Amino acid sequence: MENEDIPEDANEHCPGPQSESAGKSDACEGCPNQQICATAPKGPDPDLVAIAERMATVKHKILVLSGKGGVGKSTFSAQLAFALAAMDFQVGLLDIDICGPSIPKMLGLEGQEIHQSNLGWSPVYVESNLGVMSIGFMLPNPDDAVIWRGPRKNGLIKQFLKDVYWGELDFLIVDAPPGTSDEHISIVQCLDASAVDGAIIVTTPQQVSLIDVRKEVSFCKKVGVKVLGVVENMSGLYQPLTDLKFMKLTDSGEQKDVTEWVLENIREKLPEMLNLIALSEVFDSSGGGAMKMCNEMGVPFLGKVPLDPLLCKAAEEGRSCFADKSCVSSAPALKNIIEKLMESNGLTMSVSNGE
Amino acid sequence: MENEDIPEDANEHCPGPQSESAGKSDACEGCPNQQICATAPKGPDPDLVAIAERMATVKHKILVLSGKGGVGKSTFSAQLAFALAAMDFQVGLLDIDICGPSIPKMLGLEGQEIHQSNLGWSPVYVESNLGVMSIGFMLPNPDDAVIWRGPRKNGLIKQFLKDVYWGELDFLIVDAPPGTSDEHISIVQCLDASAVDGAIIVTTPQQVSLIDVRKEVSFCKKVGVKVLGVVENMSGLYQPLTDLKFMKLTDSGEQKDVTEWVLENIREKLPEMLNLIALSEVFDSSGGGAMKMCNEMGVPFLGKVPLDPLLCKAAEEGRSCFADKSCVSSAPALKNIIEKLMESNGLTMSVSNGE
Repeated sequence: MENEDIPEDANEHCPGPQSESAGKSDACEGCPNQQICATAPKGPDPDLVAIAERMATVKHKILVLSGKGGVGKSTFSAQLAFALAAMDFQVGLLDIDICGPSIPKMLGLEGQEIHQSNLGWSPVYVESNLGVMSIGFMLPNPDDAVIWRGPRKNGLIKQFLKDVYWGELDFLIVDAPPGTSDEHISIVQCLDASAVDGAIIVTTPQQVSLIDVRKEVSFCKKVGVKVLGVVENMSGLYQPLTDLKFMKLTDSGEQKDVTEWVLENIREKLPEMLNLIALSEVFDSSGGGAMKMCNEMGVPFLGKVPLDPLLCKAAEEGRSCFADKSCVSSAPALKNIIEKLMESNGLTMSVSNGE
Repeated sequence: MENEDIPEDANEHCPGPQSESAGKSDACEGCPNQQICATAPKGPDPDLVAIAERMATVKHKILVLSGKGGVGKSTFSAQLAFALAAMDFQVGLLDIDICGPSIPKMLGLEGQEIHQSNLGWSPVYVESNLGVMSIGFMLPNPDDAVIWRGPRKNGLIKQFLKDVYWGELDFLIVDAPPGTSDEHISIVQCLDASAVDGAIIVTTPQQVSLIDVRKEVSFCKKVGVKVLGVVENMSGLYQPLTDLKFMKLTDSGEQKDVTEWVLENIREKLPEMLNLIALSEVFDSSGGGAMKMCNEMGVPFLGKVPLDPLLCKAAEEGRSCFADKSCVSSAPALKNIIEKLMESNGLTMSVSNGE
């Protein structure tokens, strides 16, 4: 990690811009950065001190990562936050996906704004014990693209950590964008790897997603962040049979909707079928899925969550899947995973539940 | 775009490090970058000249973008490349997703390596008219994380454009990571927006994905890249009824697999059902989906591609969905979209088909 700061155009054998010999070593001769390295202030970043002060009131810090995008990472982060808040913990949810913030929508907070107080930036609250911070609250127009290169993204992440007044928190959940780049390096450097409880990595059963999860696990190992576990999301689609539509291919190759005919006939001839759940394997998991990968890489497997259209809908509408009874296939799976996560990491023990 | 290069820690009213007055204007007084700005070479980047020379043999350049990850962007890029190559065009596919390259796997090229010749880096070829370049070919171990901040990613993208010897190409398809950050700014700056035919944006019907697509459209407008059209992917799941499994919820809340019983009974009492296709709306599209968004933002809608497990499988196995007959629900949809794209942009007219 130390060498991450070495500029792209540095000479070979660069001692690093933070080194005492920066700009002064033999290797610096003729480097375009020599002047700035020789004169720039050295030593620990003063912002890190401010961040450490802010984080002193946060008991547990959990990163939610994924290798590939679109695997349901933000949905998981949002539902984890809802679940912990429902257990009466004080929860903060920080969205560091600067270019594609989904968290405001998934918490039902679209159109909200951040307020400033003399204590710092105030998160937006879903409930008194669930606060949220995202760049999504800072865009005058939700369609605006945030066309930022790394340094500006890193600056905002630092500011989120330094300037947001969370108060006393049991859990700070950090929802990261996919990948292993600026946002990830920044959050780990700013929080100091050792002070983070660990990372939850979300994936789908697909090989293309698992390839990227392996990279994410390597990243965690390299920067010293513990992998709390891997969640396999979109693991098969469960749906009440009566929610399906049925199409018939005509001779001319067109599709004709025959749903009514099917349901009528089932009602008449096979009424036992009406209460069944249809399951389809959307993503091929013949490669063994996330569980096999976890065994190979020596990280805990937390469980599978089915692809549940009702969970997708709850996320789109900013609702907790635990609050109503509709997410029959996904909510129990998520609950199991969160319980397993808490137990296996002794998280319940060390947490006062807000009383 | 011009101001993208302004360092995070610059003074207010920074004239920009490329400006003639960089480091010398009143506003530069006391700026930490003053020295380097005053002395750094100005003027056009010499690499851009080299890139323009490389690109002189490429007739059409198409970017494939998405706001959110996991919407099937790389799958679309791969199948677009397969389709164009099957039409006898000379096709190049460049993967600039540095931290999560999926293209090697999706083209069936895992484990391949890049070779150097005196003409430059040689792409890896699927067929003689379909060459591929990705950082995935450069990693000694596929599990390795590429933990790179923006500047290093930008450096590699530049190198891909400058050093890869594509030869004569009808189409160069560039598969970008999700978002609107370093990779996107770099590719547009390096290729020069006006020389790019345009961008195809891939989304799912979900609101969370459409929010990010709007940002992507804003990005294209801002940098002057034409939006060739939007593809709605994962638009409902189509599957032969006989591929489904059926589960019964027992009184104790457990699930029992009753698939055999169901299929037997259907065969006996409702045999007409055996040839039906089951359709489920995985992602809620009640908001109007991508078509509505396209109307609102004034960009072309190219069509919908269903979520097809057989297409996912083809992508995982690096196969073209057009080559076999299994992808009955997705291949015709993709074919329509590609034909529409070609026609509405006059792409067929201006292309020699390799004879």
